Amino acid sequence: MEKIKKAVLAFSGGLDTSVILKWLQDAYQCEVVTFTADIGQGEEIEPARAKARQFGVKEIFIEDLRETFVRDYVFPMFRANTIYEGEYLLGTSIARPLIAKRQIEIARETGADAVSHGATGKGNDQVRFELGYYALQPDIHVIAPWREWDLTSREKLLAYAEKQGIPIEMKHHTGSPYSMDANLLHISYEGRALEDPAEAPEESMWRWTKSIETAADIPENIELEYERGDIVALNGKRLSPAETLARLNQIGSRHGIGRLDLVENRYVGMKSRGCYETPGGTIMLRAHRAIESITLDREVAHLKDDLMPRYAALIYNGYWWSPERKLLQTLIDESQVSVNGWVRLKLFKGNIIVIGRDSKTDSLFDSDIATFEDDEGAYNQADAAGFIKLNALRLRIAKKRLDRKSG
Amino acid sequence: MEKIKKAVLAFSGGLDTSVILKWLQDAYQCEVVTFTADIGQGEEIEPARAKARQFGVKEIFIEDLRETFVRDYVFPMFRANTIYEGEYLLGTSIARPLIAKRQIEIARETGADAVSHGATGKGNDQVRFELGYYALQPDIHVIAPWREWDLTSREKLLAYAEKQGIPIEMKHHTGSPYSMDANLLHISYEGRALEDPAEAPEESMWRWTKSIETAADIPENIELEYERGDIVALNGKRLSPAETLARLNQIGSRHGIGRLDLVENRYVGMKSRGCYETPGGTIMLRAHRAIESITLDREVAHLKDDLMPRYAALIYNGYWWSPERKLLQTLIDESQVSVNGWVRLKLFKGNIIVIGRDSKTDSLFDSDIATFEDDEGAYNQADAAGFIKLNALRLRIAKKRLDRKSG
Amino acid sequence: MEKIKKAVLAFSGGLDTSVILKWLQDAYQCEVVTFTADIGQGEEIEPARAKARQFGVKEIFIEDLRETFVRDYVFPMFRANTIYEGEYLLGTSIARPLIAKRQIEIARETGADAVSHGATGKGNDQVRFELGYYALQPDIHVIAPWREWDLTSREKLLAYAEKQGIPIEMKHHTGSPYSMDANLLHISYEGRALEDPAEAPEESMWRWTKSIETAADIPENIELEYERGDIVALNGKRLSPAETLARLNQIGSRHGIGRLDLVENRYVGMKSRGCYETPGGTIMLRAHRAIESITLDREVAHLKDDLMPRYAALIYNGYWWSPERKLLQTLIDESQVSVNGWVRLKLFKGNIIVIGRDSKTDSLFDSDIATFEDDEGAYNQADAAGFIKLNALRLRIAKKRLDRKSG
Amino acid sequence: MEKIKKAVLAFSGGLDTSVILKWLQDAYQCEVVTFTADIGQGEEIEPARAKARQFGVKEIFIEDLRETFVRDYVFPMFRANTIYEGEYLLGTSIARPLIAKRQIEIARETGADAVSHGATGKGNDQVRFELGYYALQPDIHVIAPWREWDLTSREKLLAYAEKQGIPIEMKHHTGSPYSMDANLLHISYEGRALEDPAEAPEESMWRWTKSIETAADIPENIELEYERGDIVALNGKRLSPAETLARLNQIGSRHGIGRLDLVENRYVGMKSRGCYETPGGTIMLRAHRAIESITLDREVAHLKDDLMPRYAALIYNGYWWSPERKLLQTLIDESQVSVNGWVRLKLFKGNIIVIGRDSKTDSLFDSDIATFEDDEGAYNQADAAGFIKLNALRLRIAKKRLDRKSG
Repeated sequence: MEKIKKAVLAFSGGLDTSVILKWLQDAYQCEVVTFTADIGQGEEIEPARAKARQFGVKEIFIEDLRETFVRDYVFPMFRANTIYEGEYLLGTSIARPLIAKRQIEIARETGADAVSHGATGKGNDQVRFELGYYALQPDIHVIAPWREWDLTSREKLLAYAEKQGIPIEMKHHTGSPYSMDANLLHISYEGRALEDPAEAPEESMWRWTKSIETAADIPENIELEYERGDIVALNGKRLSPAETLARLNQIGSRHGIGRLDLVENRYVGMKSRGCYETPGGTIMLRAHRAIESITLDREVAHLKDDLMPRYAALIYNGYWWSPERKLLQTLIDESQVSVNGWVRLKLFKGNIIVIGRDSKTDSLFDSDIATFEDDEGAYNQADAAGFIKLNALRLRIAKKRLDRKSG
Repeated sequence: MEKIKKAVLAFSGGLDTSVILKWLQDAYQCEVVTFTADIGQGEEIEPARAKARQFGVKEIFIEDLRETFVRDYVFPMFRANTIYEGEYLLGTSIARPLIAKRQIEIARETGADAVSHGATGKGNDQVRFELGYYALQPDIHVIAPWREWDLTSREKLLAYAEKQGIPIEMKHHTGSPYSMDANLLHISYEGRALEDPAEAPEESMWRWTKSIETAADIPENIELEYERGDIVALNGKRLSPAETLARLNQIGSRHGIGRLDLVENRYVGMKSRGCYETPGGTIMLRAHRAIESITLDREVAHLKDDLMPRYAALIYNGYWWSPERKLLQTLIDESQVSVNGWVRLKLFKGNIIVIGRDSKTDSLFDSDIATFEDDEGAYNQADAAGFIKLNALRLRIAKKRLDRKSG
Repeated sequence: MEKIKKAVLAFSGGLDTSVILKWLQDAYQCEVVTFTADIGQGEEIEPARAKARQFGVKEIFIEDLRETFVRDYVFPMFRANTIYEGEYLLGTSIARPLIAKRQIEIARETGADAVSHGATGKGNDQVRFELGYYALQPDIHVIAPWREWDLTSREKLLAYAEKQGIPIEMKHHTGSPYSMDANLLHISYEGRALEDPAEAPEESMWRWTKSIETAADIPENIELEYERGDIVALNGKRLSPAETLARLNQIGSRHGIGRLDLVENRYVGMKSRGCYETPGGTIMLRAHRAIESITLDREVAHLKDDLMPRYAALIYNGYWWSPERKLLQTLIDESQVSVNGWVRLKLFKGNIIVIGRDSKTDSLFDSDIATFEDDEGAYNQADAAGFIKLNALRLRIAKKRLDRKSG
Repeated sequence: MEKIKKAVLAFSGGLDTSVILKWLQDAYQCEVVTFTADIGQGEEIEPARAKARQFGVKEIFIEDLRETFVRDYVFPMFRANTIYEGEYLLGTSIARPLIAKRQIEIARETGADAVSHGATGKGNDQVRFELGYYALQPDIHVIAPWREWDLTSREKLLAYAEKQGIPIEMKHHTGSPYSMDANLLHISYEGRALEDPAEAPEESMWRWTKSIETAADIPENIELEYERGDIVALNGKRLSPAETLARLNQIGSRHGIGRLDLVENRYVGMKSRGCYETPGGTIMLRAHRAIESITLDREVAHLKDDLMPRYAALIYNGYWWSPERKLLQTLIDESQVSVNGWVRLKLFKGNIIVIGRDSKTDSLFDSDIATFEDDEGAYNQADAAGFIKLNALRLRIAKKRLDRKSG
């Protein structure tokens, strides 16, 4: 076991990270700094202070990072219409780089030589945290208790907690049989009953969104305004990034929007079943494609679509802080200069229906050219003949070769 | 004007292609062979016989191609989870290569030296038809009346029809102010009121699907069975490809599934607004991703996702008969060998909810490894440390360089 | 024929563009502005002034664009290690966008409503010129005489010249049986004897480089210094971009470097045979890869390699001024921030041999880690076991499935 | 330490694997099966029998795999014009999958439960071997002595050898200060003096090829005949794959062809310096591109070029036996159906000069269309105008938008 002086722990205040806190103090005989962030998980973070003090922690960091999270992580990701494996909106993946960054900054401020997290050795989150740590502070010590200790089952963990006098009621999400993670972008569920992908989850699992059955019976229309690819106003009211996402979550939840039940491929090599609620994000994805549909050049849109799966995998796998992710971001951000305008949506019973999109300054939709009516010369139909002829040339030559061979 | 002996016309029996038939006879003084196919557009094709006879046509081809269409075109395309520009399921694009192929075959059978179609000079369909013609018969003459004649407006067309004694009631889809196209995969709407993307279409436009408001109030569960990536049975009953799609259209329509309102980028260079109803196809896409999620290797799935936009653009742009589309198909088809199993879906109010998926023979989901519980050694969590360390190595070296430079 | 007021002609002063000049005046009855640029083609441009005057041209633009050409076009392209179809260094392609841009600027300055060029209707250059024109001035009239006139053979052209009193000695590259194009990056040969790819060109065709047989018998070592991916000094002496390329051409030519004999695929659909001499560029490509090999992160390098063929095709096809090319350039340029250092090369008998590369500030090569000797803990070999185990996990699960199925 | 019954060792007969043999017997108290293959490394393999016997080995496998190696691994790879990081021909990477496969087969035949290799914990080869093992036999035990034992320096290794009575003269490549690897495709050098990429290797390092200085003074012309992308005859004589490569190595070496000095990015995360001699392979790459240049459709060639870096990285990283590599191979192999014909090359002083290529059956080069002379209507130049106009349409619309905004 390495000699550690001081470790910055990503501390939720729940049972697991409380056990980790205690275990770090015991096993490493090191000082622990706790870091608790509000990224919209929907729980008070201030109580974490008292809990940390209980363990004798002297340096306690409690921070509201909601705006940073949405502005610098969620919004940039949505500029790329990012989806992993065709369906997952990366709600957990996108939060880890921010936590990792703040932990490293705090380590520097407090002179800590180690960082620690509560992710297990089977999941993607350990990778996301640690690639972030190493990318930002290459010589940092990383302590991943779940890979090191012998508390390999929940029973052992609870026994340890009891023995150490850690109140069991600290247990997160009491009563939930699922492993959950939440932030402003989504809430996720894994484990237990979900481990059989042949079976649907129980309705009671879902915490944020209404079911289609119980969703509002009246549709709701909203208007989103975009500047450079980001939403800047909702229904005519300018909102900050975090306010926007919070509002869209409320609205989407009411209309049963954003549930997902998925088997995905983890970076560490196995398939895993996850359920997600991403009401605001699901609205944002659809709306962003709509505003891009009228403001983005075809080949730019296609280039983005071609690169998107790679960009999504980078984020999923934990490479937010890598140079290749940053390079792709440069391209993506630059593409958004013209993505200005508005989109109107009708939300109803789980559906997001685009009912209008326009851009005063940046529309590339030209009804004079697109019209089925007489366009008065805006487009010369005869040009199409040459266009087709030259595009067909190589196909014709190839067919002639084939005929020659077979004939 | 080239000297043409005999031309095979893709003939719907409607007003437009009737005018074209007459115009070909007049302008080219050539014999015309008509070809009318049932690809599921929902209209009788037999009446086209009498209409063609009326114009003195001697060689009349009327064929039911529904099974061919779904088996050899729609199903192969869906193996790739194909979507154009993130949303369009390519319902029109995928029908053109089949029509082009049959026209060329008929030209050979009947000794015709030309083929003709009713697509305009502004759209994608002319390209799709003609690339097909040239790829399959490089020396064929192609007559695209809309690019040649002077009937440049609907008024002129109607005047010509009247003058030629072509019954106006032949007009397709009487009363619709939209340009429409339908087959077993979808029905599409373009033009007129849709030419302003800021405005939503009228509810009355949609012909196939119920609105969310009027969709069935009771959800419906279905089970799809897959073999090598294709659906072979619905709710336990083996169905042919065309039967499958027809049934899924019925079911999907009843639940308000598969409407799409889109601004897309045409191959000929302009943006255009289209509305689509693809009830069965929308179900198929979601279900196919679900069965792949448990049966496909991660990197195979990602390779497919990376190539998909390119494959989609090839089909959209009319390159079905190109060697590059065929090569991609080889790869896609080969990937489907293990895509066997079943998917259960709940359909409700426009939503397609995956409620289960399994594969007796081909599941790669291994709950022993994925479990959050003790896995009894199936996966060694300590391996993750090395995995992360080596993946982080280049990031650490790069950060050290940066620190060296700036410090 | 459209009504044209004034046309800006890309005018070399040779026979072809002189005929075009005269033909424009006759056929369009318009004023002609000539534009002649030195981009390193190795011919005096000043004589073009007298020639233009001879035809009564009043507005004559003669410009030395060599620095602009290399700095803003050649160097940016080489940052991407750009090669078309595995071999062609795009010497002709990269010059066209600059010419197009200046023609459009001159059209604005002189109030011209048209531009004209001397490229034929079969090649890529017409596309490169005209896509540039349209991208920079969407309503410009483009006159491509080779596609319009009836001077469809060299005989007719000469007859026209004689009739119009155009001195035949104006003929470019007198005596060469090849169609040639030259600039600071390369000289190219097409046509005539080259039209049979089964036959090698005659030695006498090559104008710039020594043959391997006659190349210098003594090797020459050079050192190139890089800043942000561009060469800034040669053998310790700071040089401008154009000076650099001119010097490298001299040196490379002496050592028989940079000949290429190729069958390439034109954008307009046919295969064509071309021979190229690109001495300096060939050196630059090899050297740039060498400096990147120690300064670029692996995944950044791979991302660039993955995108390169697409970027190359954009330039080859004439899309320099497209938004997608510019976006890719943003990414490429950003990747070069760390590409600083030097490369030493030995040039000998057609060979470019890297004999050293280093970067004081930006090397990512870490001999402490890479060493085969004891690294004193810089790298923990045990990490590799976990790395391999997790990367193998999906392969193992897949094989187990296969064994289960077959056995 | 796991309990092992019997291990199959990849045994060269040299010092290192002799030490491993002994160490396996001691440390694991297990039976060892040796496997020695001739893949063209240029050393006798039969002596390995006596050496293995000396250690009491009862099951000794000695096999000539040269034909298998070239036919099933090298040739398929060259169909893709495979190069890693723009320069490396993957000579070492491509041999590992074959060795891994045979080791697993032998393990099955002999009832062994483990396999072992002599690759270190820092390199790519451990990954290539072990990914192969796991992909082919998921429950196999893998023993990588270099990651396990404490013989962490050459001194310790030699001391162990002496103590165990292993004759030091067994040392491979006596006297070479480099770590080397050889097979029919290449010989590689790493380590020691090469660990400084600023310095060129000594001339004496290179073992296969003549230097440019000492290469033959007379050029040599050869003709290669291709069937489905593979060479089937050299100078008119049909040869097997291994014979072909062996002959090309001889010829290339004589002309100083195929040296490479490179800094590459290892899969395990660090940069490393390697020198390679690949005379035959370097010829094959150039020749294959030449035959493809006249027989492959443009878009097929571009698709292959786009996928090549990914395919190369898969092989470099050890994923030969992965499903994604096999899928790509399906596409690549299918593309080669038309790659038939011949290529003539002139080899001289390190240069490979294409002096002709043709295909009686499969050439797509059509001089009637490509000609600069009058083509008598094979190609209609006027078509180009429409082709350009439609390709320019989106660029024009975008520029109009820009002008509107800024004006």
